[in-house]
Amino acid sequence: MERGLVFIVSGPAGTGKGTVVNRLREMMPELGVSVSATTRAPRPGEVDGENYHFISREQFEKLICSGGVLEYTEYCGNLYGTLRCEADRILDAGRDIILEIEVEGAINLKSLMKHDVVAIMLMAPDPIELERRLRARGTETDEVIQRRLHRASEEIALSEHYDYAVVNNTDRIDEAASEIAAIIKAEHRRISRMRPIIDRYTSVTVKY
Amino acid sequence: MERGLVFIVSGPAGTGKGTVVNRLREMMPELGVSVSATTRAPRPGEVDGENYHFISREQFEKLICSGGVLEYTEYCGNLYGTLRCEADRILDAGRDIILEIEVEGAINLKSLMKHDVVAIMLMAPDPIELERRLRARGTETDEVIQRRLHRASEEIALSEHYDYAVVNNTDRIDEAASEIAAIIKAEHRRISRMRPIIDRYTSVTVKY
Repeated sequence: MERGLVFIVSGPAGTGKGTVVNRLREMMPELGVSVSATTRAPRPGEVDGENYHFISREQFEKLICSGGVLEYTEYCGNLYGTLRCEADRILDAGRDIILEIEVEGAINLKSLMKHDVVAIMLMAPDPIELERRLRARGTETDEVIQRRLHRASEEIALSEHYDYAVVNNTDRIDEAASEIAAIIKAEHRRISRMRPIIDRYTSVTVKY
Repeated sequence: MERGLVFIVSGPAGTGKGTVVNRLREMMPELGVSVSATTRAPRPGEVDGENYHFISREQFEKLICSGGVLEYTEYCGNLYGTLRCEADRILDAGRDIILEIEVEGAINLKSLMKHDVVAIMLMAPDPIELERRLRARGTETDEVIQRRLHRASEEIALSEHYDYAVVNNTDRIDEAASEIAAIIKAEHRRISRMRPIIDRYTSVTVKY
């Protein structure tokens, strides 16, 4: 069976990452779902292994040291991340994984897994539009917005480490999602991944 | 405007190249149509610049020498090929070009145009299926079939020079065509081609 691939979707705050990835999941229900690990305590009703893999900080840190965590981030004093064993289980079943992660985590993960990771940068069409979207939320101060815009240009400057960039135009979520779907489909047909089929023709045991 | 790209589709005889490319053109009517040049005489009703660009052998050979021909082949004593000026006209208008060409021509064209050429190898799922298809035509002798199978394994051995491989399963023309459509869509979003959008964020004239 063809092994799955990891697709990273990153993008500055306000780009519409979550919305686009949700639309993509609707378009491609065959995508695998990787349950994250966290050191935060389960909330009432949350099920271990379903909402999250709930583990202790000690366990999490040990896993980081041993290379058992593909990417992680700290948020409000808790660690969140993707376990390598969780990812392998999905990939070995021939399903792809989509990870919405930050630029630094993405670059790190690419260096860890190389050939099986494809990184996509999602962007608003330009910084002016990004600013408009951040202001439209109406929840952030001017200072926070300026900081986010500055951070956006820093993140996008790092996109040379990425494989693809997709523009999320306002009111065209479907277009961005279907471009990512095309990237997923195309990456499986890259020549380096088609070796098993090519070998059927070029293997020395085939005689004419 | 975003410049078009050249997509080469190659594949051994019996792979179903023509059928798949015709289906692809139905799916993507926005693809450009490059009119080939030929040294063969026009047949009754054929229009110069529409069916072919009819040129003399002397003109054709001069164009080959000056780099004005992107790829060509000789068939029944006549030259057939793609003129660089014809291709540039279509690419500059922002449209992509699909060329169904032989492996040698494809490798040559890739070295000529590098970044703007994407090569896709179309294959039957395996040599046994390819043999079945060649026999089903009922028009070729055993010897010709054996020669074609041998040639197929030679051609597919060269696919390391290609960017993608797509399998054309029997009765699944649509799948192969839509995989090529996905490759076309994805290639336009490769990071190296998204520079103009990235520069909107990272250009020094943008201040925060």
